[in-house]
Amino acid sequence: MVESSRIFTAALVVIGDEILSGRTHDKNIAQIAAWLQVQGIRLQEVRVIGDDMDAIADAVNALREKHDYLFTTGGIGPTHDDITVDAISRALGLEVIVHPDARAILERYYEEKGGVSEARLRMARTPEGAELIPNRYSGAPGMRIANVFIMAGVPAITAGMLDALTGELEGGARLLSETVGSWVAESEVADLLREAEKAHPDCQIGSYPFFREGKVGANFVVRSTEADALAACTRQLSKSLEAQGNPAYPGGI
Amino acid sequence: MVESSRIFTAALVVIGDEILSGRTHDKNIAQIAAWLQVQGIRLQEVRVIGDDMDAIADAVNALREKHDYLFTTGGIGPTHDDITVDAISRALGLEVIVHPDARAILERYYEEKGGVSEARLRMARTPEGAELIPNRYSGAPGMRIANVFIMAGVPAITAGMLDALTGELEGGARLLSETVGSWVAESEVADLLREAEKAHPDCQIGSYPFFREGKVGANFVVRSTEADALAACTRQLSKSLEAQGNPAYPGGI
Repeated sequence: MVESSRIFTAALVVIGDEILSGRTHDKNIAQIAAWLQVQGIRLQEVRVIGDDMDAIADAVNALREKHDYLFTTGGIGPTHDDITVDAISRALGLEVIVHPDARAILERYYEEKGGVSEARLRMARTPEGAELIPNRYSGAPGMRIANVFIMAGVPAITAGMLDALTGELEGGARLLSETVGSWVAESEVADLLREAEKAHPDCQIGSYPFFREGKVGANFVVRSTEADALAACTRQLSKSLEAQGNPAYPGGI
Repeated sequence: MVESSRIFTAALVVIGDEILSGRTHDKNIAQIAAWLQVQGIRLQEVRVIGDDMDAIADAVNALREKHDYLFTTGGIGPTHDDITVDAISRALGLEVIVHPDARAILERYYEEKGGVSEARLRMARTPEGAELIPNRYSGAPGMRIANVFIMAGVPAITAGMLDALTGELEGGARLLSETVGSWVAESEVADLLREAEKAHPDCQIGSYPFFREGKVGANFVVRSTEADALAACTRQLSKSLEAQGNPAYPGGI
């Protein structure tokens, strides 16, 4: 019997009034979720909260012990509403310091852009003991303190920070997935899905209906850490869809 | 002195493995957030969790007492992974019943589409005592039980359900907002923002930087329930940006 490898989990706290007001459409959830999958880490929970000291500290403390990794996005810029570093430091019982390496990075970055003002220096503040996460895009770094990863709110900057972290975090077996699509109402194939999942206990199947081109359809996503089980389950599902007269599209519609 | 009206708050639980895997980009957070603003209700927290009975029940119980309204999206379809109704019923200590009106709706909807199968009948299941929320799009209704609103995962269907609820929920003073944009690094105007906010205690200012067309810029969003204070704060901010040599774009960039 092969011992199954440990599962690594993560949570994400998205910080920002602009998301809660509906003004800004979050892009970091999907981006971080997809990146974590590749690292073999499962995103299990996301919380979106406002620029509020207590809300941030409470969310960080509720999630950092439940998961191997906790990511935050947003609130690390130079303005008065950027309070993430203060809130996380409070949550962890740490002082806020001006990180010397972060200060040096900002001094280089702003050398020909008017120098490091008091506002810009805010972006060198970190919880005491934090390591920096490089930001190849705009100077001001992200931070890692214990299992908490403090990332930017601007998706392009967060993408660069994730890139810098790629391969750095310990993960488990990667969750693999295959998608099969069909122009069928999911209610007509509920039994097929249940049967395919039952016959392959290492797999889960998700059913994602849509309406497009005036027709109903659904994509069925089979997930497993076992490549063989995944292939077998996907095959059974495709065959049983075809047997019912519903052409199955590998890769989804 | 005018008494300020009570503030109404809401939370949202987004249910679905497909969001946590990064496969599907959530659209319901922004859609529900924007809709709530118009109802005079503030979205204060969102949680995204997987198709897991305990996770759903825990999130619902953690949030329904903290807020005036709790919305959920996802997991009310006909397939085996649709467990929202069961999880919320468990959280509220209620039985799951087949709602006679929901059954009648589905019987009409599927009359010429093959009839109501066992899988389809799953979509008529509600917590005992729930009221239905019409779904003008695809038959299967949403539900309201106490202060919990159970909505679809497909954004177009949720939009129709929100439409049916428009004007039905008690809200407070609507949070108004004005946006001013400028092609400036937010770190150069941090003081201006702080001063404008300090001079107008009824207003909050959010600063949202971006990189576009190879240039840095930011949008500053002033929020208040008081129209006069909002206008005065926005005016001060625009003037002080201009005085610094940064053209201010009303409405944002």
